[in-house]
Amino acid sequence: MLGRVRSAMAQLVGGLGGGGSPSSPPSVSASSGSAAAAPPPPPPPAAPGPSASATAASTGPCREPPRSSFSRPAFLQLTPEELLRADDHTGRAVQSPRESRRRLPWSTGYAEVINAGKSQHNEDQACCEAVYVEKRRAVRNNPGTKGLTFYYWGLFDGHAGSGAAVMASKLLHFQIRDQLRDLVDILQDSSLPPICLEDGPRTVLGEPTGFLWLRKMLRSQTMPCHSLVVGAIENAFKQMDIQIEQERVARHASGGCCALAAVYLLGKFYVANAGDSRAIIIRNGEIIPMSREFTPETERQRLQFLGFLRPELLGNEFTHLEFPRRIQHKEVGKKMLYRDQNMNGWAYKRIEEDDLKFPLVYGEGKKARMMATIGVTRGLGDHDLKVYSSNIHIKPFLSCTPEVRVYDLTQYEHCPDDVLVLGTDGLWDVTNDREVANVVFDVLMGYEPNDPCRYTMVAQELVVRSRGVLKERGWRLANDKLGSGDDISVFVIPLGGPGNYT
Amino acid sequence: MLGRVRSAMAQLVGGLGGGGSPSSPPSVSASSGSAAAAPPPPPPPAAPGPSASATAASTGPCREPPRSSFSRPAFLQLTPEELLRADDHTGRAVQSPRESRRRLPWSTGYAEVINAGKSQHNEDQACCEAVYVEKRRAVRNNPGTKGLTFYYWGLFDGHAGSGAAVMASKLLHFQIRDQLRDLVDILQDSSLPPICLEDGPRTVLGEPTGFLWLRKMLRSQTMPCHSLVVGAIENAFKQMDIQIEQERVARHASGGCCALAAVYLLGKFYVANAGDSRAIIIRNGEIIPMSREFTPETERQRLQFLGFLRPELLGNEFTHLEFPRRIQHKEVGKKMLYRDQNMNGWAYKRIEEDDLKFPLVYGEGKKARMMATIGVTRGLGDHDLKVYSSNIHIKPFLSCTPEVRVYDLTQYEHCPDDVLVLGTDGLWDVTNDREVANVVFDVLMGYEPNDPCRYTMVAQELVVRSRGVLKERGWRLANDKLGSGDDISVFVIPLGGPGNYT
Repeated sequence: MLGRVRSAMAQLVGGLGGGGSPSSPPSVSASSGSAAAAPPPPPPPAAPGPSASATAASTGPCREPPRSSFSRPAFLQLTPEELLRADDHTGRAVQSPRESRRRLPWSTGYAEVINAGKSQHNEDQACCEAVYVEKRRAVRNNPGTKGLTFYYWGLFDGHAGSGAAVMASKLLHFQIRDQLRDLVDILQDSSLPPICLEDGPRTVLGEPTGFLWLRKMLRSQTMPCHSLVVGAIENAFKQMDIQIEQERVARHASGGCCALAAVYLLGKFYVANAGDSRAIIIRNGEIIPMSREFTPETERQRLQFLGFLRPELLGNEFTHLEFPRRIQHKEVGKKMLYRDQNMNGWAYKRIEEDDLKFPLVYGEGKKARMMATIGVTRGLGDHDLKVYSSNIHIKPFLSCTPEVRVYDLTQYEHCPDDVLVLGTDGLWDVTNDREVANVVFDVLMGYEPNDPCRYTMVAQELVVRSRGVLKERGWRLANDKLGSGDDISVFVIPLGGPGNYT
Repeated sequence: MLGRVRSAMAQLVGGLGGGGSPSSPPSVSASSGSAAAAPPPPPPPAAPGPSASATAASTGPCREPPRSSFSRPAFLQLTPEELLRADDHTGRAVQSPRESRRRLPWSTGYAEVINAGKSQHNEDQACCEAVYVEKRRAVRNNPGTKGLTFYYWGLFDGHAGSGAAVMASKLLHFQIRDQLRDLVDILQDSSLPPICLEDGPRTVLGEPTGFLWLRKMLRSQTMPCHSLVVGAIENAFKQMDIQIEQERVARHASGGCCALAAVYLLGKFYVANAGDSRAIIIRNGEIIPMSREFTPETERQRLQFLGFLRPELLGNEFTHLEFPRRIQHKEVGKKMLYRDQNMNGWAYKRIEEDDLKFPLVYGEGKKARMMATIGVTRGLGDHDLKVYSSNIHIKPFLSCTPEVRVYDLTQYEHCPDDVLVLGTDGLWDVTNDREVANVVFDVLMGYEPNDPCRYTMVAQELVVRSRGVLKERGWRLANDKLGSGDDISVFVIPLGGPGNYT
């Protein structure tokens, strides 16, 4: 994902090129971007293993060191030597959990590879945990019920520094756990959720504001339990973003990250996406999208609407109007195509001097940029991100709210070849849904349905295939097209089959 | 549509009931709502016929009298006696163009019926025209090309007065024509639209604002011609809304209206919708939705986002948060389900006194209301609409921008039974897509494919079927369920067949 910031930055500073070497200057878009280019700290001890953080999950604050020094996912359990090798841009060795070590929940497959030199470290991060949710207290008089366990997979694609991605990968599942605490009893109860919980002081204040006739017409609604889990995940992302803002200095959590998380709870999958990572389910060969990308192109109208309502956020340098190309000052007075915040079509307007400002949203597809700086519009962090050589903050336009899609695992009989694939954009930029489905089919066919390593083999093949092989002219795919020079991380989660639910 | 305002108002003032009689007080939601309940003016002379306004279409300002007195669509050519009959709530006679009179373009079928007494007049309006677009001037040196003709169908569902609907029905197609003037040459040219038109003074002002490095990175984009037609229609709705605001006093154009317009131009249909009317194409029995409804439920997040960014618009009476039911002051301090502007799920929050305000958006489905007042969130007019007994304006939350869907008529071989159906919510509230498709099939089967009256027969059957017949217990459908007590208006437009394109 860094490329989406860096490549814009490159143009801004005049041609660094999207694939700058590790010696490129730090991303100019983050005022505290030093983490992106500072010399690597001595390889830290491997972060606490799954068992350790699973314990932490049930007892509260997690145990990673106060400074989020660079590391790879805890479940890889890399030795310092392995960590150095994983960090080598020239070899780009694919990393996966060793069979000899602890297996991931559900026999999940995972593989990752570092970028081709765009950033010093692999700025993707990942997490896979079984998390226990302890009741905060019986919100309804129901002492009988126990806590809940959810399964969790998270991918975090960092940009302008790896700090935010590292921090989110270590803490987001705890934020989700904390948001679920109030719901432990409710989710295990067959009846509909209560609209009002009975705890809290029975404070009686004065008459409520608002007209009496208004309050008269309010009636009760009901909503299904899964909408509470969706709300819990949405708020967990929000709290995670707040925590990154509060602790970013102490933790050196610079930059920002896209976040893609999958939660399995009580028979349902919840796939939450904020950014341009993507998730698909492959079921009996059929492709079911479980996310959509949030970019300046897909969120154009939200961004323009905000710029229109809050012009002060544009710093007198940007216009909320969209224009198809650069306007030259000699064109003032002519009619130029434009698009306003509430338009989907294009029309001509007479150019005024104010229109010479730079469009808030500019470009198409992968090249689309917001404030000429960033190519994703949702994610965590980026609290320090500013437009190059200005004091214009990007953060007000970024959303930390994920789109959460729900998939009911109980509505379909899944076979061992049905999987949920999570990948950062390094995968999807060069391998489309159908190609991913074909790789899944081809690789799984080569292994027994109950062979737990088969999903790791799929993940590795997806990463290798998207990275390509190093030739004279860089990393090349089988068809000789350019492979992905970005960090690539992939989870392959089996939806069915023996022993996957333990 | 009035029901959506009136029924809320009814609750507000304590039980008027959604189906109040003509003697009900005027809608309390419009400060100048008198037109809704004032005694009917003497039947005006029929508005200028199609030929007259077709002429007007090519020469500029249309010729209807300055005061938009109540009338029925010009193409019905009703005599004063017929107008009185059409205005009778007890008989609810279905109105259609007489075969003996001028036929609508494309042999379009049309039928309408007045409401069961919810408002004094039928607040739906309709328009069907062939409109000639004269070049404003050759924007590119192309004197050879002539003007263009587009075909136009419009339905306008008024609320809180009929003035806005009457005005829009007489003027919106001229606004579309004016927006298309610059495009006459461009749309007839096979090459892509120019990004900048060459007219206008070549004013040279000082250096443009914005960073040099920003302007450097701007490149050219291209967009297809149909996106310019979409933009023209979007801006025509905007201009129509501005004109209503400017002339509403002189024209007594009270209230507001939903607007659904279909434009046929150069082989493509453009269906523009702002409100809760709906359009579907029925092609070879298949149903293709050509619009979606804009209500407080479907636009919840846009409304909440605006209320969140501009709390002053909530007048200290409403909260942008959504709650599932009325909150009682004794519940302050407890945890209640809520939904914020960026959430799709629900979560619990501890109730503060500020949460006792009324939710900006409240209710589900047809009962959903914005500011407890209105059930549609897009349309024209409503500049005077305020929350009952307050000075809180509704208009800032309403959008006049339509969603425009494009259907390429040349991509498919259409048969005489393929139709585009436009209907106000009076139709869709009681007759669903499949039932409409069945009526289309059954009725058309009874007529020769080249019988031009067959589409009128479909429209009439759709209206009669949705109105029902008057029994002791009100208007009842064949299945004895309640018929629609709302105004009902329907266009049935043939997409193929002999002679329909002239």
